[in-house]
Amino acid sequence: MKQNNYRHDVITLGETMLRLAAPSKQRLEQCSSLDMTVGGSELTVAANLAGIGAKTAWISRLPENPMGRFVANKAREQGVDTSRIVWTNDPDARVGLYFVEMGAKPRPSRVYYDRRNSAASRMTFAETNWSALLPEARIVHMSGITPALSESCAGLTFDLLKAAREEQCLVSFDLNYRSKLWSEGDAGECYRRLLPDIDILITNRYDCERFFSLKGDESEMAVELSDKYSIRIIAFTSGEAPAVWSGRWSASLWYDGEFFAAPEAEEIEVVDRFGAGDAFAAGLLKGVLEDDPETALQLGNAMAAISQTTFGDIAWIREHDLTDYFENKNFNIRR
Amino acid sequence: MKQNNYRHDVITLGETMLRLAAPSKQRLEQCSSLDMTVGGSELTVAANLAGIGAKTAWISRLPENPMGRFVANKAREQGVDTSRIVWTNDPDARVGLYFVEMGAKPRPSRVYYDRRNSAASRMTFAETNWSALLPEARIVHMSGITPALSESCAGLTFDLLKAAREEQCLVSFDLNYRSKLWSEGDAGECYRRLLPDIDILITNRYDCERFFSLKGDESEMAVELSDKYSIRIIAFTSGEAPAVWSGRWSASLWYDGEFFAAPEAEEIEVVDRFGAGDAFAAGLLKGVLEDDPETALQLGNAMAAISQTTFGDIAWIREHDLTDYFENKNFNIRR
Amino acid sequence: MKQNNYRHDVITLGETMLRLAAPSKQRLEQCSSLDMTVGGSELTVAANLAGIGAKTAWISRLPENPMGRFVANKAREQGVDTSRIVWTNDPDARVGLYFVEMGAKPRPSRVYYDRRNSAASRMTFAETNWSALLPEARIVHMSGITPALSESCAGLTFDLLKAAREEQCLVSFDLNYRSKLWSEGDAGECYRRLLPDIDILITNRYDCERFFSLKGDESEMAVELSDKYSIRIIAFTSGEAPAVWSGRWSASLWYDGEFFAAPEAEEIEVVDRFGAGDAFAAGLLKGVLEDDPETALQLGNAMAAISQTTFGDIAWIREHDLTDYFENKNFNIRR
Amino acid sequence: MKQNNYRHDVITLGETMLRLAAPSKQRLEQCSSLDMTVGGSELTVAANLAGIGAKTAWISRLPENPMGRFVANKAREQGVDTSRIVWTNDPDARVGLYFVEMGAKPRPSRVYYDRRNSAASRMTFAETNWSALLPEARIVHMSGITPALSESCAGLTFDLLKAAREEQCLVSFDLNYRSKLWSEGDAGECYRRLLPDIDILITNRYDCERFFSLKGDESEMAVELSDKYSIRIIAFTSGEAPAVWSGRWSASLWYDGEFFAAPEAEEIEVVDRFGAGDAFAAGLLKGVLEDDPETALQLGNAMAAISQTTFGDIAWIREHDLTDYFENKNFNIRR
Amino acid sequence: MKQNNYRHDVITLGETMLRLAAPSKQRLEQCSSLDMTVGGSELTVAANLAGIGAKTAWISRLPENPMGRFVANKAREQGVDTSRIVWTNDPDARVGLYFVEMGAKPRPSRVYYDRRNSAASRMTFAETNWSALLPEARIVHMSGITPALSESCAGLTFDLLKAAREEQCLVSFDLNYRSKLWSEGDAGECYRRLLPDIDILITNRYDCERFFSLKGDESEMAVELSDKYSIRIIAFTSGEAPAVWSGRWSASLWYDGEFFAAPEAEEIEVVDRFGAGDAFAAGLLKGVLEDDPETALQLGNAMAAISQTTFGDIAWIREHDLTDYFENKNFNIRR
Amino acid sequence: MKQNNYRHDVITLGETMLRLAAPSKQRLEQCSSLDMTVGGSELTVAANLAGIGAKTAWISRLPENPMGRFVANKAREQGVDTSRIVWTNDPDARVGLYFVEMGAKPRPSRVYYDRRNSAASRMTFAETNWSALLPEARIVHMSGITPALSESCAGLTFDLLKAAREEQCLVSFDLNYRSKLWSEGDAGECYRRLLPDIDILITNRYDCERFFSLKGDESEMAVELSDKYSIRIIAFTSGEAPAVWSGRWSASLWYDGEFFAAPEAEEIEVVDRFGAGDAFAAGLLKGVLEDDPETALQLGNAMAAISQTTFGDIAWIREHDLTDYFENKNFNIRR
Repeated sequence: MKQNNYRHDVITLGETMLRLAAPSKQRLEQCSSLDMTVGGSELTVAANLAGIGAKTAWISRLPENPMGRFVANKAREQGVDTSRIVWTNDPDARVGLYFVEMGAKPRPSRVYYDRRNSAASRMTFAETNWSALLPEARIVHMSGITPALSESCAGLTFDLLKAAREEQCLVSFDLNYRSKLWSEGDAGECYRRLLPDIDILITNRYDCERFFSLKGDESEMAVELSDKYSIRIIAFTSGEAPAVWSGRWSASLWYDGEFFAAPEAEEIEVVDRFGAGDAFAAGLLKGVLEDDPETALQLGNAMAAISQTTFGDIAWIREHDLTDYFENKNFNIRR
Repeated sequence: MKQNNYRHDVITLGETMLRLAAPSKQRLEQCSSLDMTVGGSELTVAANLAGIGAKTAWISRLPENPMGRFVANKAREQGVDTSRIVWTNDPDARVGLYFVEMGAKPRPSRVYYDRRNSAASRMTFAETNWSALLPEARIVHMSGITPALSESCAGLTFDLLKAAREEQCLVSFDLNYRSKLWSEGDAGECYRRLLPDIDILITNRYDCERFFSLKGDESEMAVELSDKYSIRIIAFTSGEAPAVWSGRWSASLWYDGEFFAAPEAEEIEVVDRFGAGDAFAAGLLKGVLEDDPETALQLGNAMAAISQTTFGDIAWIREHDLTDYFENKNFNIRR
Repeated sequence: MKQNNYRHDVITLGETMLRLAAPSKQRLEQCSSLDMTVGGSELTVAANLAGIGAKTAWISRLPENPMGRFVANKAREQGVDTSRIVWTNDPDARVGLYFVEMGAKPRPSRVYYDRRNSAASRMTFAETNWSALLPEARIVHMSGITPALSESCAGLTFDLLKAAREEQCLVSFDLNYRSKLWSEGDAGECYRRLLPDIDILITNRYDCERFFSLKGDESEMAVELSDKYSIRIIAFTSGEAPAVWSGRWSASLWYDGEFFAAPEAEEIEVVDRFGAGDAFAAGLLKGVLEDDPETALQLGNAMAAISQTTFGDIAWIREHDLTDYFENKNFNIRR
Repeated sequence: MKQNNYRHDVITLGETMLRLAAPSKQRLEQCSSLDMTVGGSELTVAANLAGIGAKTAWISRLPENPMGRFVANKAREQGVDTSRIVWTNDPDARVGLYFVEMGAKPRPSRVYYDRRNSAASRMTFAETNWSALLPEARIVHMSGITPALSESCAGLTFDLLKAAREEQCLVSFDLNYRSKLWSEGDAGECYRRLLPDIDILITNRYDCERFFSLKGDESEMAVELSDKYSIRIIAFTSGEAPAVWSGRWSASLWYDGEFFAAPEAEEIEVVDRFGAGDAFAAGLLKGVLEDDPETALQLGNAMAAISQTTFGDIAWIREHDLTDYFENKNFNIRR
Repeated sequence: MKQNNYRHDVITLGETMLRLAAPSKQRLEQCSSLDMTVGGSELTVAANLAGIGAKTAWISRLPENPMGRFVANKAREQGVDTSRIVWTNDPDARVGLYFVEMGAKPRPSRVYYDRRNSAASRMTFAETNWSALLPEARIVHMSGITPALSESCAGLTFDLLKAAREEQCLVSFDLNYRSKLWSEGDAGECYRRLLPDIDILITNRYDCERFFSLKGDESEMAVELSDKYSIRIIAFTSGEAPAVWSGRWSASLWYDGEFFAAPEAEEIEVVDRFGAGDAFAAGLLKGVLEDDPETALQLGNAMAAISQTTFGDIAWIREHDLTDYFENKNFNIRR
Repeated sequence: MKQNNYRHDVITLGETMLRLAAPSKQRLEQCSSLDMTVGGSELTVAANLAGIGAKTAWISRLPENPMGRFVANKAREQGVDTSRIVWTNDPDARVGLYFVEMGAKPRPSRVYYDRRNSAASRMTFAETNWSALLPEARIVHMSGITPALSESCAGLTFDLLKAAREEQCLVSFDLNYRSKLWSEGDAGECYRRLLPDIDILITNRYDCERFFSLKGDESEMAVELSDKYSIRIIAFTSGEAPAVWSGRWSASLWYDGEFFAAPEAEEIEVVDRFGAGDAFAAGLLKGVLEDDPETALQLGNAMAAISQTTFGDIAWIREHDLTDYFENKNFNIRR
């Protein structure tokens, strides 16, 4: 991997939407205001990485209007480089949205997407000057949401993964299957075409079964994926939801031929489950940047857990939170 | 029972009050604003039924002022027919109120009523044109709160139950004993006079003991009530409160001579325990409208559980919530 | 005109959107929550009419999801009959949106629409059973927004105006030109084709100049329009905005051959300028229902003024507000 | 007048209610929360006096429940002595309420009272140990609201005014006619019986005409009242409301035989017009305590003006506000 | 101990700060508003005692500005006598602050202090007229925070404890070690100098080990402390935090030679853990005022538990809450 | 001036504080939450410049804690380069604060500072690598607040102005006298020492009189200042406050020997007067970057006016706002 003195530790690309959530545990039909933040898997990864000290950029396509600027502002607020966002003046360009309704057992939390025809869904490979960007980046991270957005986004995904490889970037990919966007069949076909260009794969046992027809335990799956597609690093995440207000999180890791089993998952008091997987990805990549598999697994799991205790998709985790997490198992007030 | 093509599946009658609740788990003495919704057992039943597809009307008496209109607006918002509300221009007419303070173990939630002399407490049988309404209704539902409000309300209760019977409506009654309104002695006497006119009774084991001197388990109580008063359908509810933020709910059902034991109660993450019994009643009556005892019991229990996860007395449950409830026992985000 | 005993005094048809407004005079980029209400010219007319005692229905097309139900709930809350809404289960169906930013002089208030591809933009004439509805309605009201939404909506507009005429409904039409939706050329051509089917036209001097090439003062314009297209009733509105927090409103009226000049406009303290024109239309139509031109003009102007003092597009005006308005010109607290 | 070393400068007695106001300029029908403060003319006078350095007590009757304690807490927060409040454990005892809806021109602000049968309306003279209190008080202040509440409150008013006189307290009375509580005839009769026991009268020109059949300008009215009833100090207030968000206030004063004309009224930016008269009374009485008519008039007018710039009935005015008011006529930010 | 007819049951002295808390479980970096209450160990004790019927005063030093008055207002609101507060007009005088961020397992709640150079940190013994106050007080309560604030505060602590002893007040002291303010070494030295002047000590097992080198169980520690320093009453508190939203609390008590073991701790649903120790102290001192060790221990534990269910440092506990607590172990709604 | 291809158009340096404002026009003593934003003259200039397209950096000193990060986040959100902020881990380091209370005529808005001993007040020249920064900057902007903060800040001000000059940066300085921080005598002495190093001076007529003993009109003052100190560009601002909710703003400009008189000031509806001068400075400097005096004056005045219509010190102005401002004088809703 490229060393520490490059301009960007991690570049991510993808769509970010306005997240409009019913406040105070109300239902959407019931409320008279909505809490507005932003959400999008790849920006969340970049923001979480920036929060713990990595240099990150996020690339997307946004309309030149208050909603588009809102998204970019929130990325900048986190310390993410937004200078490569593609801005459009098309009066019909829109930011995608999703509505969120927080649940309580036995009523699950729910998301309602309104993201069709967003400006981001019209991203193309050609509109960004990759040859200036990629040589200065150590890792390029994408997710399986992008190829599902549109044909141009699928093309962009293939082209960017290849281009990143050629520029000696590590290529990271989080499968992140979204059934609202495409069928399992289409998704699997796409994923299988992408795998040969991926260095770091974030997936889970169930997706490995349905998309790659893998069997056995996670270490066996890792061996097979690694053999077949030359993937160096594979994380298998597992987030349990015994209830809405409590959860558990753990992941195992295959790293350059070695398998690290998932540590025991501790109970989490869940404020906002959204973005847990992206927080994991951020912690994982921080460890990869340090080329330390144990750090990668520990940080990934820590960030996924803490992320669920904070409101919004972005986790707002700082280094002192990780220190606290690893040093303390007492939950009195820290003064 | 009358079939499906009548104007109203269920007509309910009773008082609805403004519910003024301290927000954000504050105490009443501590807060500078109050969350305003509406609450009243019989409107809540009608609203919850409308939410899952039944045609309902609610009848009451309200002052022609913003607070009175607020109550009617909220009923209309739920799809309840409010065209038979009796409006008064008496400048002293008022909407009853109750103040709510949410608790946390070991401090229980508390209600403080301020409902004396409300417009609804002066309802009379004569001011509504029942002979036009009842022939078009399949079920008439009332509760044991109404006869406790005033003498005129007690008279209205007796007269309406009898009139409904005569028009071949099924008569449903939820005991709902309120110790602030009358003594156990007065209540018991009233209830025992009403029972012969009731087809569907919602009660619980403890009330059967103290008001009807019944003994034994719920199935034995059901047999005795059914024998003595010719009640076709009897539900015995049981809501446990091991803590304030968690609960359990279950009910058993006697239906045309058959006893259906209560299913095991699952844990509920409680947002707002208010209205659980009314949500049960709505689910039960939906099943009765379909003349299906298993549906009645399952829907009643499901709605009582989900109702506790939503803010306010009214449950805001829609058909997809029930589908979710019966199909899933995983509490991850539904996307 | 049909007399008072029909089912609906006024039926309106059109799109209603979620209105997402930055709270507390914040800018959109700055806020962390949005106030959610609903807005759409034709529903606002129906709601405002219902608020002052008319029987109204609103027809539109909505997705079967929380956002669609939110819109219908808010219509019901106002007492508008929503039973003829067309519901779609298409998972891609969406409710249109608009974002609102309140201004202060010298910064005007702004609207940002995100309404393309809404469920309502796919309304068709065929999906509603007009032959059951129109005979029971006295007035049918539409606006010039609907034909601009899509081809199917334009077709629906033409067909409905004709069908309403045939059923002896009075046809009311508010030009309501929206430059974001179509060009002046396209709009003018459409309007000119619609005029022969219109009984009641709401317009203004500037639109009469640019779309109908009229000249002279409003009374001269009225004569010409009336002569050419047989329009019985024409209102010319005039809303001034000398600042953002203060305004003036007045309108003149041509009614069955007689011209009523605009009364002097008084100063308005503006809370929310949105929906003033729709409030005028409601007041006007109330007067038309009573076939009283002076009432029509006075109520229209009163409602347009009061409407600007209340938050949201819908005016929440009740009969006592009108009494107050006409009786009092003192602004002390009414106790 | 008694000198400065008494326990209480001013004792006031009267009802205080919960004030439930629609927030953010919403209408009552429209809002989902209400801002809760307290309001009652006599407590407001005592609180405003305490805020500018006088020692005051307020006497009333309250239920021993959170709403009753809320009222007493808010009085204590202002530094008012609440130790003589009469507390009742009657489970039916209630705190009176009023609902507030803020207006905007041409829609006036509105109050809706719900105060019948309040605990305060059952106050009696006998339940307070006046012989211990009155010798230690310099001024006793009441208003014309109290005798209108109930027969027992009317009796209390008569008895207390007489008892205060006997103990050499100055007796202050603000007419404060409330048409919702009694007729002009009943009020006038009562006022005329009370006048002989009053040293300080707060009234206005219109009330002097309708209740005391006075004519002429304010100085002539003062001479006549003073001659007939031996009233030492008479204030004639005049609050204008050219709009809802702007106002003017002025008052003239008769003080021991001398007439002080009203200074010119300056424009006020009105946040909350409620309590302006009570703020005037507080300023006036502060001047009376210093036996300085010019101070009395200036402080009264200043406090009435500033009071309208603060949210709630109580004015939250501190001594530095008065310094600012008298020294500055520039409205830049004070840093 | 002095009997019941003294002016003050308990006088406390110490700093109170503004408490600025991120709302709705947000992180501090994330929020756009802060909830403002007040917090300070000794005022909290006085307020909690006043809430359950004791006569208390609180003494401190505050700037004459809105923030200083805010603190005093909130003390008065609770019924605490604030007449002995020392007010300063120094323009640089400030109220100390602390920022609060509520956590969720595995992220603990956090406090960030900004209290240096507060007006309270400059309190001196000389500026209060103790010889007028102490003879009228039964108990004087302080905490180990005060001597850590500054040299003058340390001097004040020593002098006041001695002066209180001389006036036959019972001297109560809560160790309350704050590591941000001083080292363990400095604190221990100070505490050991103070112990001989203390009658009532609130501490815990861990502090007894580190500051007083005690060993063994709590009863053995009590014997040793009591023997060595003649301390009559010693409470050992134990608050567990297995998670952030749930907790347990218990304490044991040494009282005039008798040891009362800690009762079993029940689970608490934690709204706000802040102030639990101060609520314990208040309950304990209430029992001491009645000279009843069992009441002292029960009330202390009850108040510490209930305190954690209410927002803010002050517990807002009233006598009916204690009745509920001791009579009920069911958590249904109390109507 | 350096041309357009430098890294930073404008670098500013100064303190930024947390701004804690009472919400909804409440008084500080009255509110239970505070709105938190950030405020500091020099960051506001940088942010406003970034908002209209300039490349800016802001330099300051902040503690490594949530409050320090909050300030930096908000700067980043605006697109300001924060990479040169000096971070301190001193546990006693604090962010300065100010409390804001919004007024209404006749009560002015008020600020209460709590900024002593802030981390920023300990800035030094030495801790920043100026030799790397200044060559890449076109303008360096400071204000007269910084030298008033502390001796080290005064030294930093002198040293930085000189160093910026040496590196051919244009030096901009806004006098911004703060009477709470130092005397007129000390300020004047400092200002007079700084003037020779300044290229762009923002001041007003009154300050020129009291600090530089200038007489005559603004053009005469400009000539004298320019002659004596070789200042190229001098702006004389004039913000009027006839009331709290309305204002006027204008400024005149001396630019390279030519005087541009102030255009007539139009009425502003004032949401938040804070930061108007900083918005002017940003507009002025934008014009200076384009070396266009007319643009400088127009943009300055436009931004100062619009800035008062937005909440917070930072103006959130975007290029479309300026287009609107210059093209339109009608205040209807822009759709």
